[in-house]
Amino acid sequence: MIARDPVELMAGAATGSRTALARLITYVESGGERQREVAALAYRTAAPYVVGLTGPPGAGKSTLTDTLIAALLARGGLGAISCKEVGVLCVDPSSPFSGGAILGDRIRMQSHATNDAVFIRSMATRGNLGGLSLAVPDALRVLGAVGFAVALVETVGVGQMEVDVASAADTTVVVTNPGWGDAMQANKAGLLEVADIFVINKADRAGVAETRRDLEQMLDLGGPYEWRPPILEAIATTGDGVEGLLEAISSHAQFLAEGRLGEHRRRQAARGLDQVIAASLRARVADLAHGEAYERALEEIVALRTDPYHAAEQLLSEG
Amino acid sequence: MIARDPVELMAGAATGSRTALARLITYVESGGERQREVAALAYRTAAPYVVGLTGPPGAGKSTLTDTLIAALLARGGLGAISCKEVGVLCVDPSSPFSGGAILGDRIRMQSHATNDAVFIRSMATRGNLGGLSLAVPDALRVLGAVGFAVALVETVGVGQMEVDVASAADTTVVVTNPGWGDAMQANKAGLLEVADIFVINKADRAGVAETRRDLEQMLDLGGPYEWRPPILEAIATTGDGVEGLLEAISSHAQFLAEGRLGEHRRRQAARGLDQVIAASLRARVADLAHGEAYERALEEIVALRTDPYHAAEQLLSEG
Repeated sequence: MIARDPVELMAGAATGSRTALARLITYVESGGERQREVAALAYRTAAPYVVGLTGPPGAGKSTLTDTLIAALLARGGLGAISCKEVGVLCVDPSSPFSGGAILGDRIRMQSHATNDAVFIRSMATRGNLGGLSLAVPDALRVLGAVGFAVALVETVGVGQMEVDVASAADTTVVVTNPGWGDAMQANKAGLLEVADIFVINKADRAGVAETRRDLEQMLDLGGPYEWRPPILEAIATTGDGVEGLLEAISSHAQFLAEGRLGEHRRRQAARGLDQVIAASLRARVADLAHGEAYERALEEIVALRTDPYHAAEQLLSEG
Repeated sequence: MIARDPVELMAGAATGSRTALARLITYVESGGERQREVAALAYRTAAPYVVGLTGPPGAGKSTLTDTLIAALLARGGLGAISCKEVGVLCVDPSSPFSGGAILGDRIRMQSHATNDAVFIRSMATRGNLGGLSLAVPDALRVLGAVGFAVALVETVGVGQMEVDVASAADTTVVVTNPGWGDAMQANKAGLLEVADIFVINKADRAGVAETRRDLEQMLDLGGPYEWRPPILEAIATTGDGVEGLLEAISSHAQFLAEGRLGEHRRRQAARGLDQVIAASLRARVADLAHGEAYERALEEIVALRTDPYHAAEQLLSEG
């Protein structure tokens, strides 16, 4: 029988139990006291090196992730970071129920399904986008705490959720396709914020040169860059370009290691702390809105005996 | 010389000083202690009856507002609510600077520019969307407190900001144009949340029947309705259909007065209170993030001595 206690689960996962690891991640997904208990343990170990892959549905992210994992394991690491196993988190914030995503990702990544060196987990929103902004960084820390030196996070799209998730990554790869210049242009601000590397996947299709030109123009308008995101080409289905992608990720990891990593980790910690503070305060607003004091405050406003500023001040000082 | 004290300004505005009224609204726009002082006075009087007009840029909202004001003043009121003057707030959240909007609205509404019975004010975001969610309801209360029985609020679009502003309205009119069925369809949820009345403006153009059919279908999928939003047609430039719109607004006001108004006002008060609480807590997060305790918490997380949950708990209990 599998343990329920986070300390026991952490010990089990550290000695290779995938079931224990899966349960720990379920705990951080589920929120509340369990998430806090696991976090209290997981944040005592440094985060793994995290590679984020993001891009719209249909860009071929999963196939690219699949071949990238194989290349990473064959090489035994990412530049100076050696690893014999890799953890993969798949995040689809648009899918409130996890069933489809888990099944889909598992089938697509089935080449690793029986490979002990790869741990794949789909993370579900359970209808709560804010929840994943906390759960994904926590799950990455769990992977680090049980011995993973490298982790991959696959996300869909470039909305706020992806920016949040990208902030948990050290190197973010944005996956695009030939002919997507206009779509990229529309998300320019978000892309420039998150991208460390661009990959034009399905590069055997027409329109590669135009897409590259559009991306270059977009990058020219940004900057100046200490690290200018390179634009790579790949055909994930044949593996073409995947070695080059691994090289670029290693180069970016090297770039961070040469001075930026400390600052980067501090910024990640600040984002994490801000999100937890914001979540705590949201929870407090929700609690307040269900109390008797709130109902009384509302009565006073409706009866024209006070204004919302004084009422809120009083509620918050009592709360 | 014009007063600076809110109590004096309120007295001046109540006896007809538009300069005093304008300054009071500047105070609620500017936030901080001045906004609180004005609110403490303004919330002691009931809100005016508020008609919201919303729709995309170019739908002809300003021209419609213009003719609606003329019809309202000619009739001397809105159903059972009599009024000799009307206050108009123009809100364009997409315009961070007020210059263009003020000038544009003033020119478009110039037929009332020298009419003492009409007070027109553009409200600026000053780059802070959340600010308008508080400032617009407060400005409406100021109008009520100085004697306006009816106010109009014109907003652009149907994003979160417009939903917030619409929550400050008693009757919300959504202005559309022939041929906009698809655009409406895309914003279905937002429209169904805010609309009490639909107007197909520029109804002399082709495509009225299709737009009406699209709107009807959208409404058929919603409901059941205690008040099903009617779909009207108008040509604001000629005044065609404006009397009908005024009738529909009066009918909706009557519908609310027959039982729903108390509940509606209570829901408005709750939204207002929630927004003030949320703004206070956001301010508190911002304060926290600039303190020494926050920096220490961050150091502890980076040094792997604590996790963000414990750190946040401690910060919030100290704060």
